[in-house]
Amino acid sequence: MNIQDIIAKKRDKQELNKEEIYFFINEYTNNKIADYQASALIMAIYINGMSKEETLNLTLAMASSGDILDLSEIGIVVDKHSTGGVGDKVTLILAPIIASLGVPVAKMSGRGLGYTGGTIDKLESIPGYKVNILEKEFIQNVKNIGISLIGQTMNLAPADKKIYALRDATSTTESIPLIASSIMSKKIAAGANKIVLDVTYGSGAFMKTKEQAEKLADEMIEIGKLAGRETIAILTPMDEPLGKNVGNTLEVVEAIEALNGSIKNDLKEVVLELGSNMLKLAGKGNNLEENKRKMIENIKNGKALEKFKELVENQGGDISYIEDINKFEKAKYILPVIYEANNEGIVRNLKAEEIGKLSVFLGGGRIKKEDKIDTAVGITFNKKIGDKVERGEILAYIHANNEEKGKEAVERLKQIYVIE
Amino acid sequence: MNIQDIIAKKRDKQELNKEEIYFFINEYTNNKIADYQASALIMAIYINGMSKEETLNLTLAMASSGDILDLSEIGIVVDKHSTGGVGDKVTLILAPIIASLGVPVAKMSGRGLGYTGGTIDKLESIPGYKVNILEKEFIQNVKNIGISLIGQTMNLAPADKKIYALRDATSTTESIPLIASSIMSKKIAAGANKIVLDVTYGSGAFMKTKEQAEKLADEMIEIGKLAGRETIAILTPMDEPLGKNVGNTLEVVEAIEALNGSIKNDLKEVVLELGSNMLKLAGKGNNLEENKRKMIENIKNGKALEKFKELVENQGGDISYIEDINKFEKAKYILPVIYEANNEGIVRNLKAEEIGKLSVFLGGGRIKKEDKIDTAVGITFNKKIGDKVERGEILAYIHANNEEKGKEAVERLKQIYVIE
Repeated sequence: MNIQDIIAKKRDKQELNKEEIYFFINEYTNNKIADYQASALIMAIYINGMSKEETLNLTLAMASSGDILDLSEIGIVVDKHSTGGVGDKVTLILAPIIASLGVPVAKMSGRGLGYTGGTIDKLESIPGYKVNILEKEFIQNVKNIGISLIGQTMNLAPADKKIYALRDATSTTESIPLIASSIMSKKIAAGANKIVLDVTYGSGAFMKTKEQAEKLADEMIEIGKLAGRETIAILTPMDEPLGKNVGNTLEVVEAIEALNGSIKNDLKEVVLELGSNMLKLAGKGNNLEENKRKMIENIKNGKALEKFKELVENQGGDISYIEDINKFEKAKYILPVIYEANNEGIVRNLKAEEIGKLSVFLGGGRIKKEDKIDTAVGITFNKKIGDKVERGEILAYIHANNEEKGKEAVERLKQIYVIE
Repeated sequence: MNIQDIIAKKRDKQELNKEEIYFFINEYTNNKIADYQASALIMAIYINGMSKEETLNLTLAMASSGDILDLSEIGIVVDKHSTGGVGDKVTLILAPIIASLGVPVAKMSGRGLGYTGGTIDKLESIPGYKVNILEKEFIQNVKNIGISLIGQTMNLAPADKKIYALRDATSTTESIPLIASSIMSKKIAAGANKIVLDVTYGSGAFMKTKEQAEKLADEMIEIGKLAGRETIAILTPMDEPLGKNVGNTLEVVEAIEALNGSIKNDLKEVVLELGSNMLKLAGKGNNLEENKRKMIENIKNGKALEKFKELVENQGGDISYIEDINKFEKAKYILPVIYEANNEGIVRNLKAEEIGKLSVFLGGGRIKKEDKIDTAVGITFNKKIGDKVERGEILAYIHANNEEKGKEAVERLKQIYVIE
């Protein structure tokens, strides 16, 4: 068996069998297949697709390419995963709320991919926060305080890690079999018994339409079933950025504000929807509305924020930043984007994808997998879809560390706002 | 402009514009685009194809990725290129004939890689022959004696060199826009005003059918036209090796014999067909049959062989080898391959690709480009497709420098001969 023949098969729209898929994943994990060979195969998969069986095999091959975490000593662990969005800081808010209600959160998250951010990049903007800790420390943390959020530090699904980075750099992200296998392989390797999926759709998500999102959700639910992990999925529209900030530090600040009770409606809805389902899967109550009420209560009484502080402290982070968000380092240039037309209007469109790219342009995301990111840059929205605006009002702020780029970003953002 | 957007466009079957194609080629040549990004784009091109205009832009971008040789002081230069074959010693015979008829030959050739040989490797089996000379010496040689054959010493079409290596490793070789742009970019960079192409098809060629070969030929002719280089193409079947020998020294000897008037029919046809067209392009006469007659005349009167000697002498080679072919070093073991079946039969198949691989096995070719080659080894065919054979007759000879390998090659060649 050799990789050229496997590439040629998929190139010619033939179905790959289990042995071929495991050969690719194992040899690629062991660096016996070059990145440029893997990316050619992945492009062929992107264009020619995969059958359900191929996708299941790819998922299981990736899940078993490294360690499979054993969380049995913790008990029932419900994992949550979002297919990604722009300004999606849901995990940062949801995880401490759920943990404060007695459901263990043992969660591994990813880094930014293309124009969407990653929870791990966001957590790293809290000084001292260690995203890379040992497996036993991770499990011990969950047993001690009920929560730990880390990066993919253990050798979990290493094949997925390599492929994920390649896909980002080769425009092969928006593919149902590749997304489904990537997500489910990580979830299976990460040891959760139950999985709640947030499948986003719209201009800011990988899936542009609700139909595509449903297809992706179905594919993942089926993989979960075949792999013995109860899985449910929520569909979330993502036509504009979620909440008010896009950018790593800015989103952490927004999450802290949310845990303090100040949260944008769109963000709140997603948090409650996912959380109520997680509580249900964890056996904490079948009434979703009642579950949402409990969540809100734990924000109001400060228990959720307290849990977030515990989490940060436990992972080496400096909680003085949580207590005083003004301590976070700000970008050098904070430039207002002003509405200059004479006629007043309503924001009709605010394409999340364009905004994600703008954030990458400012330095807040990666173009190549080796790229470093600038945590301070980003965008703060004053006006979102449906808001009325008048001449002279501030639509948003650009946070930049380079004046030229900042100015260019202001102009670009003006073009992104569709106001009629 | 960034490479991800360019990849995404081709992935989605959109046409790439000139700027995008030049961006890809220039940045890739300068190592600013990673191999894994280039291979994803190349797979997308393989699957989704390219328009004629895209292929032209790709060709011109690759041609201008390095030096472009200026042969204007020589005048009209006609170049010849074959899409590859096994036992293809056409250039060694054709070039001196054409030069002896007053058409300047300024030709750069490649080395062998994989199962096809390279003219430069063959020339190096003449003791003293220098394939690496300076550009001005090369041009001076052509001005002085009307011919020079050298290796690709200058930095010609470096982008093609990089892409060619990638394609080999990613199953993206057999693509018409990629083959056409690869060949034509090298020809354009090598400075010829007129180009004659030998497009091979069959089991020993990249194009398996005549229809594919025609499509490839049309594409290259059109590129040549648009690039201002008059181009014509000849289609040549390549189901068995060309002529009677495969192997570096063996093919040089066969070429010298041909220039002495003794030439296999299949080889003769290809030489005359290409040569008569080259003479036509060079303005030496529009009647192809008349051109062929002139070529044969210059073999008979010894002028073509004389030109070959001049070439060899001018490049430092020892012409006593040309005068006495017995001086060439022979392989240690020359082993007959005997037909042992009881019933007589006719040779039905003699797969060129398998024979090329057998020559590599004997040490006459390269698997990796760093490999050293053994010039003496190879195969001499007594019987080719269509020949009748009886029990006890010699089908071929294996020339080997290692007895074990020689014996194994004898057995392998017996399997390659299909006699019915």
